[in-house]
Amino acid sequence: MKRIVILGSTGSIGVNALRVVDNLKNEFAPIALSCFRNAELLAQQTLTYHPQFVNMIDSEKIPLLRDKLIGTKTTILEGKEGLCRIASMEEVDLVFNSIMGSAGFPPTLAAIKKGKRIALANKETLVSYGTIIMSAAKKYKSEIIPVDSEHSAIFQCINGRKNQKIKRILLMASGGPFRNRDDILNVTIEETIRHPVWAMGKKISVDSATMMNKALEIIEAHYLFDIPPKKINVVIHPECIIHSAVEFEDNSIIAQLSTPDMTLPIQYALTYPERKQSITKNLDLTQISNLTFEPVNHLQFPAVSLAMRALEKGGTTTAVLNSSNECLVDAFLNNQIAFHTITKVITEIIDKHTAVENPSILEIQNAELWAQSEAQQYIVYAKK
Amino acid sequence: MKRIVILGSTGSIGVNALRVVDNLKNEFAPIALSCFRNAELLAQQTLTYHPQFVNMIDSEKIPLLRDKLIGTKTTILEGKEGLCRIASMEEVDLVFNSIMGSAGFPPTLAAIKKGKRIALANKETLVSYGTIIMSAAKKYKSEIIPVDSEHSAIFQCINGRKNQKIKRILLMASGGPFRNRDDILNVTIEETIRHPVWAMGKKISVDSATMMNKALEIIEAHYLFDIPPKKINVVIHPECIIHSAVEFEDNSIIAQLSTPDMTLPIQYALTYPERKQSITKNLDLTQISNLTFEPVNHLQFPAVSLAMRALEKGGTTTAVLNSSNECLVDAFLNNQIAFHTITKVITEIIDKHTAVENPSILEIQNAELWAQSEAQQYIVYAKK
Repeated sequence: MKRIVILGSTGSIGVNALRVVDNLKNEFAPIALSCFRNAELLAQQTLTYHPQFVNMIDSEKIPLLRDKLIGTKTTILEGKEGLCRIASMEEVDLVFNSIMGSAGFPPTLAAIKKGKRIALANKETLVSYGTIIMSAAKKYKSEIIPVDSEHSAIFQCINGRKNQKIKRILLMASGGPFRNRDDILNVTIEETIRHPVWAMGKKISVDSATMMNKALEIIEAHYLFDIPPKKINVVIHPECIIHSAVEFEDNSIIAQLSTPDMTLPIQYALTYPERKQSITKNLDLTQISNLTFEPVNHLQFPAVSLAMRALEKGGTTTAVLNSSNECLVDAFLNNQIAFHTITKVITEIIDKHTAVENPSILEIQNAELWAQSEAQQYIVYAKK
Repeated sequence: MKRIVILGSTGSIGVNALRVVDNLKNEFAPIALSCFRNAELLAQQTLTYHPQFVNMIDSEKIPLLRDKLIGTKTTILEGKEGLCRIASMEEVDLVFNSIMGSAGFPPTLAAIKKGKRIALANKETLVSYGTIIMSAAKKYKSEIIPVDSEHSAIFQCINGRKNQKIKRILLMASGGPFRNRDDILNVTIEETIRHPVWAMGKKISVDSATMMNKALEIIEAHYLFDIPPKKINVVIHPECIIHSAVEFEDNSIIAQLSTPDMTLPIQYALTYPERKQSITKNLDLTQISNLTFEPVNHLQFPAVSLAMRALEKGGTTTAVLNSSNECLVDAFLNNQIAFHTITKVITEIIDKHTAVENPSILEIQNAELWAQSEAQQYIVYAKK
């Protein structure tokens, strides 16, 4: 029985992680859960899984959680400190991190410093703190297993091929809801969060529509697999059946396919290097009948080139990309700015940014704050 | 520098193997070559690669070969004995066997008994002598690396996944030239040997048209990967880009893709477990744009079910399938029988056959002779 901590257990990835745990009966015991502020669902999960600890960031909701957990043996922790504490507990075998945004970084680093295996669904951690995370993981011999379907695919394709040189990564992209739309100037919030294939949270749906999700994934892949950006090719594949692929030195391509269902990469991150029966429906290619591929329309979706530009500029630039995106997506979802301005403003902020090479955590945090204030200035200006 | 023997060096696979050797400059030295009777090409190859030995089966052509090789240091050997001798030479690192038909078995076994690594393009050896070959390979710790594009794909997909249980093999098939043809009663030899994707020899082209090649490949996969026939699914994929795939226990599918070019699996069989730059053109999925998949039409192409039936019946039955097919294809190419009768007659012969379980080499050879005589009877009857 492996002891697992699930950070962000009330989000869509966290909830699916618990479904996978249910499927792998008697193999994983969730000994700690955490969320931002969904006290109701966290309480419900606690009554089901009886973790030793739960952690909530939003202190206002703590009394409600306390109330709902009266009579249980679960200890309630609070804030960032509690989060880092449960991520680095001695008895934990695997930390599953599905926190959204930069908040996922401190517990990831805490877990790495204890040499834990980490199933990482929090892509922002790698995007902003990639160099710190990967060098710490190396130093503390902590294994980072990707949960994202694309990175899990790449991880599965590379697996067992240490002496085979990688020529290119084919990072697949659905193309999002506006792939075939000529004009994205006046798209609405509702159109934006209606993703054609994956059921996802709002922030990620907007990222999918701008293709900023691919930008973040390019950066993530760069750090995770130590691949230079020019070896990462984005391929539009609307059916989302091939989740990504790796081209090796001899021009042989190894690809990973499945029905689009997050429970598969989640489970693989838990069971790796083994596989177990899953709740993911099996794929019948003769039913699918047709897989299509297109190049990226870089004019309509500048996000992909933006990732390359951010990686070239290096240092704190990827953190700036991520932070300004978080702000601007929030503003779009609050009806403060138009959809097409998200990537436009990020481009401007990246161009304006003075990158700090090999940054410290503090320097990255400062760059994030700077990016946020730059984005805010634009948002305030746009409202006028 | 690895020393390699190429059996069947004048056939299309053999010629491509030498192109691959050319590409992998200074990595492989062909120290022996062999062919059936193409003395001209064998002489030419000898003058290029300066092997220590060449072997030819057809003794009538030996004087011609001797004539052309006057003044060279290459020793000329003859017949099956010479073939087995060069396949089992002490100094050989890898035996590349691209002989066509059952004639490929004796040198394969000879190489296995010396614990050689064998790149096996001779599928008939496995189809007829599968149990003997695989148990001998285990006993003598000889590695068998498949060269067939489909089996190479499966081999590449399985590689490095020892503790991952295989659920299904997806054996891809182009569907051959008659995939979309309603009536195959009156197809001509010319139509039959015009393969839509792969440039191949005549015998293999006919096998592709009847889909007997897939029948042979199912049997080959069964022995090579120790997979029960019911776990092998044939999928029609006319573009021949995904060369085959493996579905694991969690419903994740790992697939191998490339431009359709035999030099890729040939090279992988030579360089495994490494990869090297190849002469295979790289694959641009956005240029391909579309991959399609269909189920097999078992009514039109009974060969696939025939393989399953032969494996169920077991023992000598797969040898009977192979041998009767060899005879009947030959008869078709000699205008003696109609195309659609090939699988029909094989079905009848298989049904009539009394299988010998765990057969000896002699019992397999007897079964082959019996199948040939049964096929001949039909051919003679058809001529009348």
